[in-house]
This record gives sequence, structure tokens and C-alpha cells, in this order.
Amino acid sequence: MPPDLAKIEATLLAAADAAATCTLPLFRTSLAVDNKLSQGFDPVTEADKSAETAIRAVIAEAFPDHAIIGEEWGTSGNSEYCWIIDPVDGTRSFISGAPVWGTLIGFAHNGVAIAGLMSQPFIGETFLAVPGRATYRRAGAAQPIRTSGQTELAQSRVFTTTPNLFLGEHWPKWQAMESATRLQRFGMDCYGYALLAAGHADLVIEPSLNTYDIAALVPIIRQAGGAIACWDGSEPTGGGDVVAAATPELLEKALELINAA
Amino acid sequence: MPPDLAKIEATLLAAADAAATCTLPLFRTSLAVDNKLSQGFDPVTEADKSAETAIRAVIAEAFPDHAIIGEEWGTSGNSEYCWIIDPVDGTRSFISGAPVWGTLIGFAHNGVAIAGLMSQPFIGETFLAVPGRATYRRAGAAQPIRTSGQTELAQSRVFTTTPNLFLGEHWPKWQAMESATRLQRFGMDCYGYALLAAGHADLVIEPSLNTYDIAALVPIIRQAGGAIACWDGSEPTGGGDVVAAATPELLEKALELINAA
Repeated sequence: MPPDLAKIEATLLAAADAAATCTLPLFRTSLAVDNKLSQGFDPVTEADKSAETAIRAVIAEAFPDHAIIGEEWGTSGNSEYCWIIDPVDGTRSFISGAPVWGTLIGFAHNGVAIAGLMSQPFIGETFLAVPGRATYRRAGAAQPIRTSGQTELAQSRVFTTTPNLFLGEHWPKWQAMESATRLQRFGMDCYGYALLAAGHADLVIEPSLNTYDIAALVPIIRQAGGAIACWDGSEPTGGGDVVAAATPELLEKALELINAA
Repeated sequence: MPPDLAKIEATLLAAADAAATCTLPLFRTSLAVDNKLSQGFDPVTEADKSAETAIRAVIAEAFPDHAIIGEEWGTSGNSEYCWIIDPVDGTRSFISGAPVWGTLIGFAHNGVAIAGLMSQPFIGETFLAVPGRATYRRAGAAQPIRTSGQTELAQSRVFTTTPNLFLGEHWPKWQAMESATRLQRFGMDCYGYALLAAGHADLVIEPSLNTYDIAALVPIIRQAGGAIACWDGSEPTGGGDVVAAATPELLEKALELINAA
């Protein structure tokens, strides 16, 4: 029996609230930051770890039989239903005080995310999707969101976290995107996808994502009228090189551009 | 007779409130965007124009003899005291829905900014300085801000709006900064300087600023314990190629690095 959608939505919101009690007290304070990787700089904060623990507890209470994949604590359980968590997406923003990080929680059925949430608790914003609708919440008010409806590359505002992500053979793909579009904006992580869903940006392109970077955002974009895929056209819930667009037509054009570069 | 500092502070805050009534209703809506420059993309919004008009009215009421320089409406008046306005710094953020733009209002005496404000009204934040103190305000509460105290390049978090600003001979300077520092973050405009003043970033570097891009931020950084200069060491209130640092020691090291590259 498929799980109750109202319960999925309530669980997403409760888990985000639980995460915020862990992340907010640590935002804009001096943090002990350790390195997850031996090379490069990959900040992992206490906020990340404690927030994922808090989210997992809320999900396990509501849906003890579901699987969970989290950035910090790996995979648990085995089910056709899976929750996919990035407690602090945009750790670079988090540790430099920029309020454009987010808590990501996705809910997937057989490998395709069908519900999800992006929460930015410092600003007090939540972008949420369940089958049939995408919603923006702030200050107790909720309103439906729609993408811009943009279909032309030349008119598009494109986001990527940093051009430095486009290494080697990926570099010409960013250059082609930059040349073809109207405005480029860096540094947004998950926040860029949320803005796309709400109609303020038209394209987001990023290589080498993990499932927890993108799963929560997939249903938000789709339920708002947008389209999202891996560069080879495949389902992006599992991660990979991803592009999101305000419309299926714009996605098609972006994929053509990327694959020709 | 030098103007009353309490009146300066009250005027900064009243002008920011007046600007917010113009900017906020236009943020995250579909805007008619026209091009100020015949080439390139320089978005100018209705928000920019109407907010500068509102700010000018507040200043003219309080200090009718002072000069005013604004991004949109140019220079008016002639005085040793000058108000320097960028109604929406970060128009690229503004038109793509990212809440990291700001309203900048500086107050200069004989070409050196001595008081200033950066307001981000969507989040509800204000960073303000008058001689003797720098303050962060949100939700009715005010608290003093201090820079991080960082003195080492290798430990520093550095912000710049986009690496694309570093054209031609400037490119190696960004590359040197990127190699020497711990973390790089793009896309912040004025917000990066405010975060530096509040201790969350350690360096901001940007070429080719106008006076209205930087004047308001100069006293915020200095009163919070930081240091800021043009790359040749000169006073930055008038604009130019600028670097800001958490401490005078770090500024010295950054200037050496920039000038050697």
C-alpha cells in the first residue's frame, strides 16, 4: 500500500523543523571544521551531522520500514520507498555565513523522487513538493510556485555553484552555456534549483552531483512545471551531471547544447 | 560644525526603510529589465530607480546642504559632506531572486566614508557603522559586530562576485588569491563585505568598483576591526580595484600577493 501523501508532507516538514534546531544555533558562529576528504576542502560541520541524526529520527518514527540515504551517515534499510537527505547542502555557504544553504529531504519510490523539501531556516523559507503541487512557505503563509515558463536559451538566467566544478572535458560545456544565455549567477547550491522552481531563474547546470544533492529538488522542479535530467537524458534522482530547466522545451535545448560542446 | 552622529545614524536607517518600500514589492516578481549599457548585461530595475529617489528625499530633508552621489541619478550638490548611494547593489542577485543584494548608503567627509549602512530587507538584516561602532540589526535586536581577526592567507575564506570580473592583467591576481586561500565563494556583491565585517569571511577582492559600490561598506569594515584599501594601498571610498580584510595584517599580506601576481 503506498504511503499516505499527507503523512509524507507532514514528515518532511517535521524533519526540516528538527534539522533547523541543529543547524541554526551553529550558523554564523565560529565552528570547528574538519576535512572529510584528505585532499581538497570539503567542510563538514557539526550542524550537518546532528541535523541528519535529527531528520533520521523523525523519518524512522513515521516510516520505520523505509530506507534512508544520508550524506553523513550513509544508507540504512532496504525498501522500494527511500528518503534521501542532505542536512546542509551548501556547506561552503554555511561556513561563510551566506544564507543560501538548505536542508534537503527527498522521498523516492523505486529510484524516482516524488516528494521533497528544501528548507532555508535562517530566512525562514521552505520549498516543498508532493505529487500534484509545489509550494513555497514563509511566515506561516503557503503559496503555489511555478517556473518562469521560459523556452529560449538566449533569454535564460543560468545558475551554477562555481565554474570551478567544470573540470577537463566539462569546461567547454559551461563555456557553451555561458555564451548561449542572458545572465549567469554563481554560488547558489540547492538554492538555485529552488529559485528556478519559483520562477526566478531558468536553468541550473551542475556536474558530478550525489543523489543527496539533487533528489529532494527533482519533484520540486517537476511539480512547479520545470524539467530536470542528467546530461544523457536519464533520471537524475540518483545524481550525476544534472541540468534543470523552467520548461521541457528549454531542457531539450540545454541538453542539445551540452552534448554538442 | 560637524553633523550630529545620532542624526546621521537615524537618517541612514530612515533612508533604508524608505528604500525597502520600493525594493521589496518588486523582488521576486517578473520585472521589466532594460539595459543601461549598449553592450553587456547590466540590469537596472524599477526598484533601483524608485529606491534611489526615496533615499534622496530622506537625506535632502535631514541634510539639505549635503552632496549626494547615486548610482542611478548621478551627483547633486557640492559639500565636504557627501552621501553615496547604491539603491540595489547586486542587481544580478535581485533579478534572479537571490536575497544577497543590498541597499548601500554611505556618508563621507572630504572623500573618506565615515558612516554607512548595508540593508537586506527581504531577510530583514542591517549592517551599520558610525564612528566608534559597527552594528548588526535584525528583528528589532542590535548587536556589535567584529571581524574574524584572521591574519593568515592560508586560513582565509575569500569572496568575489564572479571570477569573470578579473579580465586580462587582473586574472593572475585572482588565481594567486585562489591558490593562497582556504575557501573561495562567488556571487555575493555587497553581502560579502557585510559578512566579512561580521566575522564570517576573511577577504573580499574585486576589481573596478564604483564609489557607490563600496563607500557604504568602508566604515562598516573599519569599525568592525577590518581593513580595506585599493590594490595600490590608497583610500577606497572613491572606488577602484579593492580588497577588504579581517585585519590590517591580512590586508598587508593580500596586497603583497596581489601586487606580486
